[in-house]
Amino acid sequence: MAAENSLEIKPQVGIIMGSKSDFEVMKNAAEVLERLQVPLEVRIVSAHRTPHWMMEYAEEAEARGIKVVIAGAGGSAHLPGMTASETSIPVLGVAIKGSILDGLDALYSMVRMPEGAPLATLGIDVAGAKNAALFAARILSLNDPSLARRLSGYKDVMRATVRYDDGRLQEVGWQKYDPKG
Amino acid sequence: MAAENSLEIKPQVGIIMGSKSDFEVMKNAAEVLERLQVPLEVRIVSAHRTPHWMMEYAEEAEARGIKVVIAGAGGSAHLPGMTASETSIPVLGVAIKGSILDGLDALYSMVRMPEGAPLATLGIDVAGAKNAALFAARILSLNDPSLARRLSGYKDVMRATVRYDDGRLQEVGWQKYDPKG
Amino acid sequence: MAAENSLEIKPQVGIIMGSKSDFEVMKNAAEVLERLQVPLEVRIVSAHRTPHWMMEYAEEAEARGIKVVIAGAGGSAHLPGMTASETSIPVLGVAIKGSILDGLDALYSMVRMPEGAPLATLGIDVAGAKNAALFAARILSLNDPSLARRLSGYKDVMRATVRYDDGRLQEVGWQKYDPKG
Amino acid sequence: MAAENSLEIKPQVGIIMGSKSDFEVMKNAAEVLERLQVPLEVRIVSAHRTPHWMMEYAEEAEARGIKVVIAGAGGSAHLPGMTASETSIPVLGVAIKGSILDGLDALYSMVRMPEGAPLATLGIDVAGAKNAALFAARILSLNDPSLARRLSGYKDVMRATVRYDDGRLQEVGWQKYDPKG
Amino acid sequence: MAAENSLEIKPQVGIIMGSKSDFEVMKNAAEVLERLQVPLEVRIVSAHRTPHWMMEYAEEAEARGIKVVIAGAGGSAHLPGMTASETSIPVLGVAIKGSILDGLDALYSMVRMPEGAPLATLGIDVAGAKNAALFAARILSLNDPSLARRLSGYKDVMRATVRYDDGRLQEVGWQKYDPKG
Amino acid sequence: MAAENSLEIKPQVGIIMGSKSDFEVMKNAAEVLERLQVPLEVRIVSAHRTPHWMMEYAEEAEARGIKVVIAGAGGSAHLPGMTASETSIPVLGVAIKGSILDGLDALYSMVRMPEGAPLATLGIDVAGAKNAALFAARILSLNDPSLARRLSGYKDVMRATVRYDDGRLQEVGWQKYDPKG
Amino acid sequence: MAAENSLEIKPQVGIIMGSKSDFEVMKNAAEVLERLQVPLEVRIVSAHRTPHWMMEYAEEAEARGIKVVIAGAGGSAHLPGMTASETSIPVLGVAIKGSILDGLDALYSMVRMPEGAPLATLGIDVAGAKNAALFAARILSLNDPSLARRLSGYKDVMRATVRYDDGRLQEVGWQKYDPKG
Amino acid sequence: MAAENSLEIKPQVGIIMGSKSDFEVMKNAAEVLERLQVPLEVRIVSAHRTPHWMMEYAEEAEARGIKVVIAGAGGSAHLPGMTASETSIPVLGVAIKGSILDGLDALYSMVRMPEGAPLATLGIDVAGAKNAALFAARILSLNDPSLARRLSGYKDVMRATVRYDDGRLQEVGWQKYDPKG
Repeated sequence: MAAENSLEIKPQVGIIMGSKSDFEVMKNAAEVLERLQVPLEVRIVSAHRTPHWMMEYAEEAEARGIKVVIAGAGGSAHLPGMTASETSIPVLGVAIKGSILDGLDALYSMVRMPEGAPLATLGIDVAGAKNAALFAARILSLNDPSLARRLSGYKDVMRATVRYDDGRLQEVGWQKYDPKG
Repeated sequence: MAAENSLEIKPQVGIIMGSKSDFEVMKNAAEVLERLQVPLEVRIVSAHRTPHWMMEYAEEAEARGIKVVIAGAGGSAHLPGMTASETSIPVLGVAIKGSILDGLDALYSMVRMPEGAPLATLGIDVAGAKNAALFAARILSLNDPSLARRLSGYKDVMRATVRYDDGRLQEVGWQKYDPKG
Repeated sequence: MAAENSLEIKPQVGIIMGSKSDFEVMKNAAEVLERLQVPLEVRIVSAHRTPHWMMEYAEEAEARGIKVVIAGAGGSAHLPGMTASETSIPVLGVAIKGSILDGLDALYSMVRMPEGAPLATLGIDVAGAKNAALFAARILSLNDPSLARRLSGYKDVMRATVRYDDGRLQEVGWQKYDPKG
Repeated sequence: MAAENSLEIKPQVGIIMGSKSDFEVMKNAAEVLERLQVPLEVRIVSAHRTPHWMMEYAEEAEARGIKVVIAGAGGSAHLPGMTASETSIPVLGVAIKGSILDGLDALYSMVRMPEGAPLATLGIDVAGAKNAALFAARILSLNDPSLARRLSGYKDVMRATVRYDDGRLQEVGWQKYDPKG
Repeated sequence: MAAENSLEIKPQVGIIMGSKSDFEVMKNAAEVLERLQVPLEVRIVSAHRTPHWMMEYAEEAEARGIKVVIAGAGGSAHLPGMTASETSIPVLGVAIKGSILDGLDALYSMVRMPEGAPLATLGIDVAGAKNAALFAARILSLNDPSLARRLSGYKDVMRATVRYDDGRLQEVGWQKYDPKG
Repeated sequence: MAAENSLEIKPQVGIIMGSKSDFEVMKNAAEVLERLQVPLEVRIVSAHRTPHWMMEYAEEAEARGIKVVIAGAGGSAHLPGMTASETSIPVLGVAIKGSILDGLDALYSMVRMPEGAPLATLGIDVAGAKNAALFAARILSLNDPSLARRLSGYKDVMRATVRYDDGRLQEVGWQKYDPKG
Repeated sequence: MAAENSLEIKPQVGIIMGSKSDFEVMKNAAEVLERLQVPLEVRIVSAHRTPHWMMEYAEEAEARGIKVVIAGAGGSAHLPGMTASETSIPVLGVAIKGSILDGLDALYSMVRMPEGAPLATLGIDVAGAKNAALFAARILSLNDPSLARRLSGYKDVMRATVRYDDGRLQEVGWQKYDPKG
Repeated sequence: MAAENSLEIKPQVGIIMGSKSDFEVMKNAAEVLERLQVPLEVRIVSAHRTPHWMMEYAEEAEARGIKVVIAGAGGSAHLPGMTASETSIPVLGVAIKGSILDGLDALYSMVRMPEGAPLATLGIDVAGAKNAALFAARILSLNDPSLARRLSGYKDVMRATVRYDDGRLQEVGWQKYDPKG
């Protein structure tokens, strides 16, 4: 099965998060990658509770064949930035919204990295996680024409969906249109 | 000369900005890439004043050999996101601070892209521009071991500088230390 | 029937939105225009997923007889600004509140357009959508005395409602007043 | 002379502001309108210090031939909204940045109008003032093909400037380019 | 009955609000004043929908014996500031939280009045409404020793409640304490 | 001399501030009161450095004949709220802008008082200080017809100034108008 | 029983809060301290309703053997800062989120104390309360090796939990992982 | 000399900062500690450029006799939080204001630490640095009566300064008072 295979073959993208409470958001990244047939791994690694394990993960990722790390974190959100400091491969941050501040705390912690430790922020919560996966696929497809084709197909579906939605709206008429229908 | 050569050989990174007033910030990205010997181009392309030209640029970039686009913009800052929508290669956004709002306007415009149009935000103003260049180099070095080595050297210099600064501080003593000395 | 007629005759106002998830908010604009007997159309057009279709819509609107475009979008919200860049007729933006940031993301993306691409922001969510419709009607009524009269009647009703509410409050007394009664 | 004539013939756009300290910003709107040969007037009218005079102005504007009001204000910024409440013609607000809060105070005061009193916010400070003028011209050009042509020319100049700037940058090379040159 | 009497005798405090949707918040002000036996009236007056009626109210309040006006409003919240501009008696503003922005929109609209139109902001939502009533009572009690005594009693109750809550917490022990018990 | 007399006779308004660095702002309140011939005192009282002295001041103010306290503070800005808790007379807060946060820190500290300790916030920095003085005068003039007349004159001057500014602008024409002239 | 003993022996940490409505948050601090066997007391003390009692508490705490005060408050949140002003022992603030502003009001009121009245802010709501307790324990363990060991054990548990969560995730596979399972 | 001695004897407080550009702010902490005769060290340690060196510092601090760490950082500001994760002694954070965002970026990064890694935030910029030093002294003085006395003297001076400033203001009269005199 595709899903299981993606764990058995060497992962190209490492998805990490600071706590299992981030899983529901970050799983969206995994699902997008799986749909694009990009082998991935998902790990729970905490900057604050397991700093050594985090640094070990960041330092060894490249040698293990990981090409891109997607790191999700909320609150003080040091995981993405510290990982970016410890590795040489691209790190993509996803700001996770906590119970307060709408994810701005995590966002600010990610977009203000000093020169030398580049961290790419892909957005907040679910849209951020999905776009992080799509961005990772863009990076990988620079050298993987087959992935580039799958990515292009993904884009086609999104475009077609907008056209379909508009088509149905015109057919039904706005007075009767039900966006959830 | 390296600087001139980087224009003559096929550029791998396209740095674009919405207006010449963004140049002073974005030139920092060009300088970092040049130092890393990554061939680049710098263009002025406005989403609002030259929308067709912007879309043309985005659509043709990949075919011209561009592998990563770095897009800087301030205010409503639609350039990075529209470019990300029109191309399939990675686009890195740099939020440029205008006379008000400390770049938050541009930042919000970049980090809230909908699923399907991934845009990576690298930060605000100069630090953002430099880190965008370093991030582009991280992407390119996934398939360029020689660039990876140069990037590693860049990192070594930054680390050594911190150690040097601390060394001097210890030598002089904090009472007499002059950080600008 | 009025509602159906408004689709059959040539629309004067084009209401567009980036996704069907914006429909519940934007339909308020359609309802106000219909009540004022302004012919309108409602379309789903995405800046990020269908950029070419968006530009086509913006460029052809005027020739099709559209006099005002109302564009609703949330998050990065590039649709209103890009439409304003591509057309010569007035474009009214409505910031749609997403799951986070209370619509400030879309608002900032709209109110910071550079000189030359004027976009009028009418507000956030439902009040914004309704006022966008009323503002479009104000524009159209500059050359349509009959619409001006209907608009004036609309205003009279709002004024009368406030006076009625106050009247009932005085009659009942504040201790027993039920604002939902 | 064009400038003097624009005062002698019946003004179509009324530019008002709450205090003479707003003049330096709002004069940008007047200059754009003058360049587009739209007759205009400029008045100082305070919502808080001359409320009766403000209401009189708003109520009589339409009868005097004014078709669009551009109202600039800072701080609590009640002038644009109160004017929109008192007139039936389109009112365009420009948020003026005071010594603190970057114009967000005025912005919030303008974009949160209740249903029934539509106010269009065109932006903050100089860019807002210029775009308000361009937006007023878009409204007027719906019924003035000659103005529409002038507006189109204005747009052409802006587009050409971007292309020129980029051309010069390519010619000079980014290493030597001086954006202020 | 006290409540009915407070309507029959000449009101000293006028509580106004922009819409009946503000009533649930503003009624808290009325209840506190009633408890302090301060005669009051409650009116619905809209700055944007009934500007003339608002100005009439503001101008006549003092002559009718009103000594303090409490004005509650949300969103653009022009009612308190316009009332303060039109009257010579103290006006107290209460910022009402709408569906977005946590009342900051109304707050900014109130605390940034220009010199000459003083408006006192008492807070946001229910706490703001109650404190507006208590502040009005402080003003009136400058010349009403009997009201000053009632106000002092009100304060005693609040102090005693804190001491009582702490006493119960000590008695029960924090492990078993139920703050709602 | 009026100024000296205002210190010799019993002060009716107490202006306090947390530090002498607040003096330049708060002196504006004193100047307005002096111009209105309201006797006043100005004191430096710190909530954090002299808490006992602050409480003593607050408790004894009323007995000394003070009828209104104007308290200015920046940063954490506890002085106005603590004074309001300790006295029974009206307390007016002025938020003083520090080197960061544009006075929002002090503002939030003032507008979120719990029920029972009403504090009226009059604004930020100089405009806030002046309006605090005018508001204090409104309170006092409820029982001082002569002060009411002076306050009315103050308002007349402000109104006349706006009309004068507009008159000069019309005379000179906007093209040549110099707001500082 | 440990819990009861912790009240009988002399408390080393005083947990105070402005109102019983803060109890649900602040009890988390008590629970952490109890688990670490640090004797504590929990009191309700209001800066605004019982200012004298607050100052008495702050002044006598040290003499009663209290070594650290943890003060939780929401809104204007003057309790932590005033306590820090009145005592010489370390005071830890916890910002409690009210119905609006996500605790930013309380946060700003705490982190902007003037020189001389140091207040340490430990965070917002539950995480803030727990960390305040852990921080108090860090202070106490500087001179209590046995507490230092318990604190170290607490840290070990947190680290082990992360490793356990990751272990289970790897075992189950991300496709089937249930973070709440 | 005291200053030199403080380096020779074993430091009790470690002041660290992410870059020499933070020195001008953080030196204020050193000066306060020196005045209180608390032995200290000042080091430059970067979370992002020297992550291993940072972790080494954090892990060894306690064994070297450091009892409190004061960590200053701006932007993403991961240094204080990572240090708090790696050590068991109290860590005090100082948010340093960068060129944008007024230090809110660093502040949010510090006050949102997850349970288990307590970080105490002492404020922003100079006031934060000074209060961090005073707070460290409060911690140390729990077991150092002589330091407690010096700290008490420090407080006395601050109190006396306020009283002196007020005294001079009364003497001179507010009309002639010069706060910088």
